[in-house]
Amino acid sequence: MFFSVNRLAFIEEINKCNRIIDSKVPTPSISGILLEIDADKISLISSNTSMSIKTIINMGTNDLLIKETGTILIRGKYFLEILRRMDDDIVNISNIEENIVSLSGEKSEFSLNILNYNDYPTIGFREKGDIVTVKNNDLKKSLNQTIISVNEWNQKIVLAGLNFSIDNSMFYITGTDGFRVSRKRIQLFEDIPNKFETNIPHKSVLELIKLLPEKGECKIVSVDSHVTFIINNTLFQTTILEGQFPDVNAVFPTDFNTTLYMDNKKFFKLISRADIPSEENTSTVVNLILNNDSIFIKSNIHQIGSFEEIFKEFELKGLDEQNICFNSKYLIESLKTFETKNVEINLIDSKKPIVISSSEDMDLSQIILPMFSN
Amino acid sequence: MFFSVNRLAFIEEINKCNRIIDSKVPTPSISGILLEIDADKISLISSNTSMSIKTIINMGTNDLLIKETGTILIRGKYFLEILRRMDDDIVNISNIEENIVSLSGEKSEFSLNILNYNDYPTIGFREKGDIVTVKNNDLKKSLNQTIISVNEWNQKIVLAGLNFSIDNSMFYITGTDGFRVSRKRIQLFEDIPNKFETNIPHKSVLELIKLLPEKGECKIVSVDSHVTFIINNTLFQTTILEGQFPDVNAVFPTDFNTTLYMDNKKFFKLISRADIPSEENTSTVVNLILNNDSIFIKSNIHQIGSFEEIFKEFELKGLDEQNICFNSKYLIESLKTFETKNVEINLIDSKKPIVISSSEDMDLSQIILPMFSN
Repeated sequence: MFFSVNRLAFIEEINKCNRIIDSKVPTPSISGILLEIDADKISLISSNTSMSIKTIINMGTNDLLIKETGTILIRGKYFLEILRRMDDDIVNISNIEENIVSLSGEKSEFSLNILNYNDYPTIGFREKGDIVTVKNNDLKKSLNQTIISVNEWNQKIVLAGLNFSIDNSMFYITGTDGFRVSRKRIQLFEDIPNKFETNIPHKSVLELIKLLPEKGECKIVSVDSHVTFIINNTLFQTTILEGQFPDVNAVFPTDFNTTLYMDNKKFFKLISRADIPSEENTSTVVNLILNNDSIFIKSNIHQIGSFEEIFKEFELKGLDEQNICFNSKYLIESLKTFETKNVEINLIDSKKPIVISSSEDMDLSQIILPMFSN
Repeated sequence: MFFSVNRLAFIEEINKCNRIIDSKVPTPSISGILLEIDADKISLISSNTSMSIKTIINMGTNDLLIKETGTILIRGKYFLEILRRMDDDIVNISNIEENIVSLSGEKSEFSLNILNYNDYPTIGFREKGDIVTVKNNDLKKSLNQTIISVNEWNQKIVLAGLNFSIDNSMFYITGTDGFRVSRKRIQLFEDIPNKFETNIPHKSVLELIKLLPEKGECKIVSVDSHVTFIINNTLFQTTILEGQFPDVNAVFPTDFNTTLYMDNKKFFKLISRADIPSEENTSTVVNLILNNDSIFIKSNIHQIGSFEEIFKEFELKGLDEQNICFNSKYLIESLKTFETKNVEINLIDSKKPIVISSSEDMDLSQIILPMFSN
């Protein structure tokens, strides 16, 4: 086994594989990264109990030059540490003994102990099944906008991740923790069989966000109990969360008594001020009182203090009297997901969900259930 | 009590006081910040078991306007959190009830519970004693260069901080953990009685580094078992470490067999490469072999791997054969303290200390004891 490759590009691919590795597993081989050096490409493979990654560097890209094929199983952490310390643009990698690999540049040489690749399990990557294609940047943005409503430790397992579904050529990504709902839709430009529905675990969503570049497209392949994301030269496969995701359409109100039109940043800052810090990091209940041309925002934390502010910079459609309480953290997180100048706060009454939306991004909705104070 | 002040300036002064507060003390009053509002100034005072701070905002500075004098004891953490959330340039602060203070801007108003200032102990600040005056930036830089050799948890208490001493109009700052010594001298421009010697605890040095601005001068006042640093409008007082600091002059070699002249950055990168990462974060032993016109750098970590590099970019004075082992972390940290282009590595033999110096900064010396391998 002998090849040379662009050091920084190699670091990037190893890093993709290394991120998902669980160093606490009892069998050391599973915590390694498998490098298969073929005549025309190098495949890097890693895995943990719920995710697997396979990424490929092809001959002719990234200064890759393969002089001798072979297979090795490396410990990613040390490989990365050493590659990062090297100065060279190109690094040469070769077996010097059965269990020792050499990394060398122009002047320096590292010898690194490796693992036995025969101990590595065979990992199957599924690339065929129901396929949806979306733009990488659309998917990345949508995941960031919806993951805020997911509680990784939700007792209802199916809620501990994001739901992907298709309806009428629309791809929906939905997250909910039972107190709020985040939903984003992406217009598809191909006809898809309606049967695509799956739930991606929280940790896998976070990893996927890191893997997605700004450019290009991602193919999402659903088959049995796995989903594979094909992102350029990288396959990312995850197990799914079993169970029936709740029908959130049922909780989405459509008719509102009051809509408030506001500057996103100004309203965000106002609610951030009301979000009084507390000793135990408990959530702050904020009371919004709409009265004619004024919004009174009040909050109160036992033993710490209270806050009050009058806000008049809004436009109104509908009823000019409302009195509603909500968790300030939920509203703050929702407002952050809108990269728009303005937002709309849609209200029915003190007991019905608040819907946050924006005419500048019709595909994103955030819903927050109200709280009942006193 | 009623005053208004520039919000950002006020945050800065409260932050100075809040940083040293130990929130885990059993009596809540000690974890407060005392604000004494006089006719012409506000004093802010805070304290923990080893450090105290008093900082003053004078009338006529920082938009301070005092409308009513008084004393309050606030919880710094919440005060800061709220001040940071406000939008206003100027903030108004007043008592609204005996135990409630109001912070208000143009539109928003916070009410915050405060502590009882009668419970706060009287803290004496010593401003008279043996005084040394140094430039703030000189002191800050010197502390950063010498603290690397201090082990906060050193069993020999006097070594758990930095030693300040004066000899022949030179102000010396010295740190040592028994394996290495960092020493920096600052030329004084006034005659000082030779009796100035004190040991500042590690935590107090870190706090002092944060307090020192780039401009102006600092007066260091030593009296009994305390040292007070007078930095512009701020007094910072610390207890000292009792005991006799070792005479490090005795370990300072002056005659060397070999001096290596090298580019600081290049040598630093070389030693960083040799500093192979290990599982248990143990230190790496690096072997430097000088042979004629080449330096061989070798390192080895059990079960992980080994490193080897030949380095020729140096000039030499003296003996061209040396073979010495040292802790790579110590050398890396020493080299970092030199903000110079070149460094000199001074060697005697494999069993004598290595001295790192630079002709561009004659006031700084770093000494490392060698290690004996095999």
